[in-house]
Amino acid sequence: MSKEAINADLLSLCKRRGFVWPSFELYGGVAGMYDYGPLGSNMRNNIVEVWRDIYRGREGFIEIDSETVNPREVFKASGHVDEFADLVTYCGECESAFRADHLVKEFFDNPDVLSPKELDDAFVKHEIKCPECGGKLGQVEEFNLMFKTAIGPGSSRVGYLRPETAQGIFVNYLNLYRYNREKLPLGVIQTGRGYRNEIAPRQGMIRMREFNMMEVELFVDPDDKDWIRFREIENDLIALVPNTGTDTVTMTVGEAVEKGIIANRVLAYFVYTTQQFLTRLGIDPERLRFRQHLNDEMAHYAMDCWDAEVLLSYGWIEITGIADRGCWDLSRHAEFSGTELTHFKKFDEPREMEVDKVKAKHKALGPKFKEKAKTIAEAMEAKRPSDIKDGKLTLDLDGEDVILDGEFFEVVRIREKVSGERVVPHVIEPSHGLDRIFYSVLEHSFKHDEKEDYTVLRLVPDVAPIKVGIFPLMEKDGLDDLATDIYKRVHSPCMEAYYDGSGTIGKRYARMDEVGTPWCITVDYESLEGPNKGTVTIRERDTTAQKRIPSDSVPDILRSLLSGMSFEAL
Amino acid sequence: MSKEAINADLLSLCKRRGFVWPSFELYGGVAGMYDYGPLGSNMRNNIVEVWRDIYRGREGFIEIDSETVNPREVFKASGHVDEFADLVTYCGECESAFRADHLVKEFFDNPDVLSPKELDDAFVKHEIKCPECGGKLGQVEEFNLMFKTAIGPGSSRVGYLRPETAQGIFVNYLNLYRYNREKLPLGVIQTGRGYRNEIAPRQGMIRMREFNMMEVELFVDPDDKDWIRFREIENDLIALVPNTGTDTVTMTVGEAVEKGIIANRVLAYFVYTTQQFLTRLGIDPERLRFRQHLNDEMAHYAMDCWDAEVLLSYGWIEITGIADRGCWDLSRHAEFSGTELTHFKKFDEPREMEVDKVKAKHKALGPKFKEKAKTIAEAMEAKRPSDIKDGKLTLDLDGEDVILDGEFFEVVRIREKVSGERVVPHVIEPSHGLDRIFYSVLEHSFKHDEKEDYTVLRLVPDVAPIKVGIFPLMEKDGLDDLATDIYKRVHSPCMEAYYDGSGTIGKRYARMDEVGTPWCITVDYESLEGPNKGTVTIRERDTTAQKRIPSDSVPDILRSLLSGMSFEAL
Repeated sequence: MSKEAINADLLSLCKRRGFVWPSFELYGGVAGMYDYGPLGSNMRNNIVEVWRDIYRGREGFIEIDSETVNPREVFKASGHVDEFADLVTYCGECESAFRADHLVKEFFDNPDVLSPKELDDAFVKHEIKCPECGGKLGQVEEFNLMFKTAIGPGSSRVGYLRPETAQGIFVNYLNLYRYNREKLPLGVIQTGRGYRNEIAPRQGMIRMREFNMMEVELFVDPDDKDWIRFREIENDLIALVPNTGTDTVTMTVGEAVEKGIIANRVLAYFVYTTQQFLTRLGIDPERLRFRQHLNDEMAHYAMDCWDAEVLLSYGWIEITGIADRGCWDLSRHAEFSGTELTHFKKFDEPREMEVDKVKAKHKALGPKFKEKAKTIAEAMEAKRPSDIKDGKLTLDLDGEDVILDGEFFEVVRIREKVSGERVVPHVIEPSHGLDRIFYSVLEHSFKHDEKEDYTVLRLVPDVAPIKVGIFPLMEKDGLDDLATDIYKRVHSPCMEAYYDGSGTIGKRYARMDEVGTPWCITVDYESLEGPNKGTVTIRERDTTAQKRIPSDSVPDILRSLLSGMSFEAL
Repeated sequence: MSKEAINADLLSLCKRRGFVWPSFELYGGVAGMYDYGPLGSNMRNNIVEVWRDIYRGREGFIEIDSETVNPREVFKASGHVDEFADLVTYCGECESAFRADHLVKEFFDNPDVLSPKELDDAFVKHEIKCPECGGKLGQVEEFNLMFKTAIGPGSSRVGYLRPETAQGIFVNYLNLYRYNREKLPLGVIQTGRGYRNEIAPRQGMIRMREFNMMEVELFVDPDDKDWIRFREIENDLIALVPNTGTDTVTMTVGEAVEKGIIANRVLAYFVYTTQQFLTRLGIDPERLRFRQHLNDEMAHYAMDCWDAEVLLSYGWIEITGIADRGCWDLSRHAEFSGTELTHFKKFDEPREMEVDKVKAKHKALGPKFKEKAKTIAEAMEAKRPSDIKDGKLTLDLDGEDVILDGEFFEVVRIREKVSGERVVPHVIEPSHGLDRIFYSVLEHSFKHDEKEDYTVLRLVPDVAPIKVGIFPLMEKDGLDDLATDIYKRVHSPCMEAYYDGSGTIGKRYARMDEVGTPWCITVDYESLEGPNKGTVTIRERDTTAQKRIPSDSVPDILRSLLSGMSFEAL
C-alpha cells in the first residue's frame, strides 16, 4: 500500500469508527481541529495512563493541572509574546493567508530561517503568486501564534491560551518546591490542552490548532546531572542521529554519554525513557529514532535537545522533544516577577566564603526611628542583597510595610561560614505531543490485507480502546442473556467491553479487529448444554487462535491477559 | 467552628498542602483562577473516575472529548452569543468593573432580573457609588461572559472558549448517533474545561473563570421517558424542594414521579443517580438536597430542572444541575446548520400515513436532460422535502452537483405505508461542576478538633489523593530499606503512596490525616526480628486502630481495603 493510501484509509477508519472526527463539520469545519470520538477518547486516556505509570508510578513524580488562559506577563517572561510567531502573507485579492516560508520551499533548503525582507524578495525573484487565485501577495509580516483574549471586562488584562503546559509548572515552582520539602530532584508532570493559532494547518492530526500535551519538567541540581536509575539502562541500545551528521547510529545509552553525544546522564536517561514509553505504546522501534537538534535549530538557551521522530506516511515526524533547558525558564520568571526561584543547596560541611550581606547603618536609623531602630536593624539584616529593589528594602513590621532607602543600609562583603548556597535549578524536559503519538500508534498498528480487504489494528492491549467484544452466537435461546451477564460483569472504564449481537460472527470479529480489540468472547449453544456447558470461546486478535474457558472466569482471565499473561498460557 | 473559619482554614490547608493554589501568584494573581496541585490533581482525577464508573461502567454511556475553542456559529445556535451575559457598570473614576446587580442586592430580593435601565435608576435612588473609590458609576451595560478570540490570521473567524462542554456533544450528534448504530437511548459524557469570563469573581472555587465540568447528555425518544433500571431505585428516598414551596420533602423516587413532582422517570432516575454519585464521593447526605428550578428561573425550553445543592460555608450552593432540555439543543443546531438532527423511529407495524414526497415533473425533465432524465428523476424522488433549500434541490450525479429548481419537481401529499418516523430526540442533562464538587467534598470531609488543634480530612478512600503513607520508624538499620521496598511495590497512579521518614511517627500520622490518607504503614524494629518478624503495622485514619500484617501482603491488603473490605476484617 502506498503511504498516501495508508493515511487516507486510516483517517477514513478513524472517522467511520469513532476515533477522531474533524471538528464542527456541522458548521463547515475548522482546519486543524479534531474531536476525539468514543474510541479515540478511550485510547487517548489509555496512552496518558501509560505515561502516568512511568512518570508518577516508576519515577515518583508529582502531577499538577494549571490554567489554560494565562495573563500576558507569563508569556512575556517565557518569550512567547516576542518570539512565538510565523511569517504570514495575505493575497491582495482573495485575502487568503499563507505561511510565507511554505510558498518558497522549493527554492530554499531551510526557508524558515528567512527574514520577512528576504521572503518578499524571493516572491519577486521567483514570481510567486497566490496559490488560490493567482493574485499578488502582500508584504510578509509576523503573526503571533498564540490565541489572544481578554480576562475580565473593561480595561481588562490581556490573556493568551497557553502554547504549552510547561509554563504552568514553572510559575508554580515555589509551591512545588515547598511541596517537595525543598529538595531536588523535583519531577513534575502535566497533561492538558495547548494552543497554536496556525496560519493554515494541514497534515491532519500532526498540526493542530488545539492539541494535547504530556509534559514533564524535572528540576535538577545544575552540578549533579546524574540519575539514580541510570545504571539500570546504561547498557541498553538506542538509535541516535547526532547533529554532527545525518546518519543513524545505534549505541548503548552509556556510550552516548561517555562519547559526549548526549550532554549528560539525566538527559540520556529520559531520552531512553521516551524510547521505552513509545515502544510500550506500540510504536515500531524500527521506525523510531532520536535526532539531535542542529546547533542553529536549538533554542539559544538549550544545553542539548533531542527529538523522538517516527516514520509515518508524512515522513519522519517529531512526536516528543527531550531537552536540557538549563536555568532559562526559572531565570526568566525570576527576572520578570522579581522573585527568587532557587534551590538552597546544603554543603556537606559548612564552608568559609565571601558573601554579600545587608548591614544596617545604625547612625542613620537611630535618630529617625528611635526605639524602633533596633527592631528595624534586625529585620533589615535578615534580608538578602537580592531583596533590594530599585535601591530600596521593604520590611514587614507587624503587618505594616516600612520602605527604606540606601541611607539606612549598605551591602558589605564579608567572610563567614556558610552552610550552603542558592542555585537556580536546571530543567530537563521530555515534552510529548499526545495527538501525534496517538496518530503514530494508529499508523504503526494498522495492518491492511489488500487481497482480503481486511483491516486489523494491532494495538497493544493497554492502549486498545475496547478490550473485549462479547457476542451471543444468536440473540435468542438465552445466549443473549448469558452474553449480557458476562458483559455486565466485565465492563468497566478499565476493561471497556462491547456487546455485539448483530451480523455473522465473522462480521463481528472483523468489526472488532478493525478497531484493535485484542480479545473476543462468544457464547454459543455449547455454553448452555453438553460437555462444554458453562464455557465460552475466547479468541485472540493477532493469531485468531480460539480456546474455550469457563464463563465464570472471564473477568479474571481478561484481567490476567491485560496484565501481560500470554494467550498460550490459558 | 464558624463557617468563615472553616472556609479560611480549609483554603489555607489546600494551599499549604498542595490541593489548590491561586493561579499566577508570581505575577500578582488573577481572580477566579486556581491551579490544582499534586494532591488536588490526584483527587480531582479520582472524582472523575467515580463518575466514569457510574456513567461509562454501569450505564454503558460513551465518552468523547471535543475542542474548547469553538467558532461563533456554535454559540449563535446555542444562544450564548445573545444571552450569556451579566450586567456591568464601570466606575467613572477608578475604572473598576462591578456586577451591577450585586451593588443593589440589599434593596431587591431578586436583583438579577433587573434591566440595565432599572439598575441605573436604582443607583440614583439608593445613591450607590463605586465601592472602591466612591466615584460615580457609569451606565449599566451587557457584558458577554464568553472569552472571545480569533481563529487563524487576517480576516479571521471569531471564536469563543466554550462556556460548557455540552455543545461539543450536540454538534457531534450525527457522528454519535451513527456510532450508536442509529439507536436510542444514546448516552454521551464529556469532562473538560469550561470558561466564563466573570466580571468580578469571588467565593473561591465556587465561581471560577476557568472551571472543570463533567457533563452527561442523554438523547432519548421523546415519547419514551422511562429508564430500564428505574425499578431498581424507585423505592429509594430522595430529599426534594419542589418549586411549589420552599420546604424540603423526603419521598421515594417513585412517588416523586407519580405525584408529578419530577417530570418523568428518566429525569428522576438521573436525579437519583446524582445523589448516589455525590454521596459516594463523601458528600454528607444531610447537607444535600435537590431543588427544582422556579418557573421564572428555568430556561424557557427546559421541561423540568433540578439543582443538586449542598450546604457549605457559603450557604446552599448548586453543584450539579439535572435538566430535561426537551428538543431545544438539537432543534436549534438543526435550524442554524440546515442539517436534520433526528432519530428514525421504527413503528412496531408499518402504518398508513399521509406523507409529503418529492415528485419529479417528467414533462419538464425530459426535454432538458434527455437520456439522463430518468436517472435524475429517481435521484430526485429519493430526496425528502426537507432537502429542498431555497426552493432548490441539489443532486449528486456521479460526483457532479446538479441543482434543480421548482420547475422540475413538486411536493405532493400522499397516503402510504411507512415503517417509521423521524423524531427529534429529547435531551436529559446531568451537568456537574467538578471544582465545586471537589471543594464540597473537602468541606464535608473536614474535621477540626479545636482543643487538640488537629485536622483530619475524612475523605473516602476512592477519592483520597494519597492512599497510603509508608514510614520507617527510623531512617536507619534497614528500616528505611524495607519501607522503600514496600513503597516501590505499592506505589502506582491507582495506589498513590507517600514515603515519609522525617519527624516523629505522630507528626507523620498527623501530616497524612490532614490530607485524608486512609491508611499508614509503619516499619519498626519488630519488622526485622523477633516473633513479629516480617510484619508491619497498618493504621486506619478514622479509628486510629492499628494491626500487624505481613509485609509481603501489603499490596494485596491495600487493594482489598480500597475495594471496600473493612479494616476489622483484616
